[in-house]
Amino acid sequence: MKILITGGAGFVGSRLARTLLQRGTLDGRQIEKIVLADQAPARAELLADPRIEARVGPLLSHCEALRNEAFDGVFHLASAVSGECEIDFDLGLRSNLDSTRALLDALRHRVNAGAKPARLVFSSSVAVYGPDAAVPMPAIVTDTTLPTPQTSYGMHKHVCEHLIADYTRKGYLDGRSARLMTVTVRPGKPNGAASSFFSGIIREPLAGVVSICPVGPEVSHPMSSPQRTVEGLIAVYEASREAFGGRTAMNLPSINVTVAQMMDALEEVAGPKVRALVRFERDERIAGIVANWPTGARADRAAALGLKPEASFADIIRQYIADCAGQPQALKGMA
Amino acid sequence: MKILITGGAGFVGSRLARTLLQRGTLDGRQIEKIVLADQAPARAELLADPRIEARVGPLLSHCEALRNEAFDGVFHLASAVSGECEIDFDLGLRSNLDSTRALLDALRHRVNAGAKPARLVFSSSVAVYGPDAAVPMPAIVTDTTLPTPQTSYGMHKHVCEHLIADYTRKGYLDGRSARLMTVTVRPGKPNGAASSFFSGIIREPLAGVVSICPVGPEVSHPMSSPQRTVEGLIAVYEASREAFGGRTAMNLPSINVTVAQMMDALEEVAGPKVRALVRFERDERIAGIVANWPTGARADRAAALGLKPEASFADIIRQYIADCAGQPQALKGMA
Repeated sequence: MKILITGGAGFVGSRLARTLLQRGTLDGRQIEKIVLADQAPARAELLADPRIEARVGPLLSHCEALRNEAFDGVFHLASAVSGECEIDFDLGLRSNLDSTRALLDALRHRVNAGAKPARLVFSSSVAVYGPDAAVPMPAIVTDTTLPTPQTSYGMHKHVCEHLIADYTRKGYLDGRSARLMTVTVRPGKPNGAASSFFSGIIREPLAGVVSICPVGPEVSHPMSSPQRTVEGLIAVYEASREAFGGRTAMNLPSINVTVAQMMDALEEVAGPKVRALVRFERDERIAGIVANWPTGARADRAAALGLKPEASFADIIRQYIADCAGQPQALKGMA
Repeated sequence: MKILITGGAGFVGSRLARTLLQRGTLDGRQIEKIVLADQAPARAELLADPRIEARVGPLLSHCEALRNEAFDGVFHLASAVSGECEIDFDLGLRSNLDSTRALLDALRHRVNAGAKPARLVFSSSVAVYGPDAAVPMPAIVTDTTLPTPQTSYGMHKHVCEHLIADYTRKGYLDGRSARLMTVTVRPGKPNGAASSFFSGIIREPLAGVVSICPVGPEVSHPMSSPQRTVEGLIAVYEASREAFGGRTAMNLPSINVTVAQMMDALEEVAGPKVRALVRFERDERIAGIVANWPTGARADRAAALGLKPEASFADIIRQYIADCAGQPQALKGMA
């Protein structure tokens, strides 16, 4: 089978590709090819596998060609992130709405030409939720909570969920939208997402670097490890339509923790000196965005698919440390 | 002040224009000009008023010019209807999504150039609601019911609600989305909306013509008279942002009645011979669409604005009969 991963050079996309290569199969079928479409070049370690093909450039520029190419499955992860979309409104519309529409229309074009509908998993986000004066947000959002997005990014994600549901209803694709919780710990540099600090306050101290936390320790948030997130995307892909249940987006599992609990977990795993590298300096722009996010989430439909969150945030930190094997710089703070 | 009505040659748009001309003011300001943008020519009776200017053509073709024109207020009513969108997927996307986006971007362009944000009322629809396997629909939908649209038309309306909420959050407009209930009794010919028969089964018998009801008498639906609908749009325009409450779409009031109750009201107002002109012949396509619509609606936020539904369906029929004064053909069945 042939798979397309948009955003395939990103953190989640790369890990998904690596996991799929290791499995060798998806939904019981042999994986022959995985195309990674991304603005950035794909990771060298992935390109070393002959099953990987990389295409570099904005997603929008690829979609015309996709009308003439057969894919069995698509993981649509490409997205401008929340911070970027707040700063550049047009960039957000183009990267998140126009690109998704062009991708869906390419898949529809193939069905109109007689092809079987492709299966598509869309990475939506917990950022669809927000408080509106007319619709108070519950402390813990669920699969059936009314999304009233308070960022452009959240709006884009929710609009794409609805587009995908309707294209699916019409038989143009077999689409499933899964709402990712905040993926922590991301490696590398901050990425412009307003949620970036949730990784930074773990990653930087472990590397021996001071990290600024732009919100207070009382802030609570639903999070998930990279590996659980990737496993969730694969499980949503492999679910039967009946098991997925309807065409409405589904929350992926989360562990709901406060920044203070994250700090306690950091100290538990890496010691008090590492914890002490986190400084609290409020950033009104970031804090304002985060204040509109839910403090926790529930994922009943995902649980029915057998998906579970990490048992503790310390386990998430331990996963990150294991991922850093062979990169002593990344764990310099623990030395 | 200068007002734009998209869909201004349509039934609701024309009635809104006539009502505004009669009032002479909106939100306490003198109305100097009302521009009616529509694919169809504006009604002659409206064009006779010097305050009316008509522009004929697809909305999308007008939007570039709208970047260079100041409007204080916009009523965005233009839309391809549900039946059309199910038959022609591209037409629906173009007429409902692309046109709305172009309109919003024209208004945003003006704000970026230093203008005050225009106030915009968007006519969304009760068609945003539908049952999804993952999210059962309540018998009576409310302002906070999670919309899971089961038609492309309903999806388009809901997506536009979210676009308008986000453009409003960013200060590009002062947008308010109001969900219209099924407007009954529409005059003239059936219009391609799946809900068209709700008017036909009253209008045709009153004109002495047999009408086919494509669904059973037990089917219940939230309806509103044309005048209450227009009054609702004006009230939503005139509400303060605080009174409107948030940026989430609001249901307009409805009277929730079954087809059987509509028939009883028809007999009450026009007699048994008129009622006997309605024949029940199930149409699977229409019945299938209608089966996914809510059987009734509640409008708590609209009620807080002082808006009320008609007291009885017989009153809605009487309003239609009064509107037909001077058109004896339209009431030939009662002769």
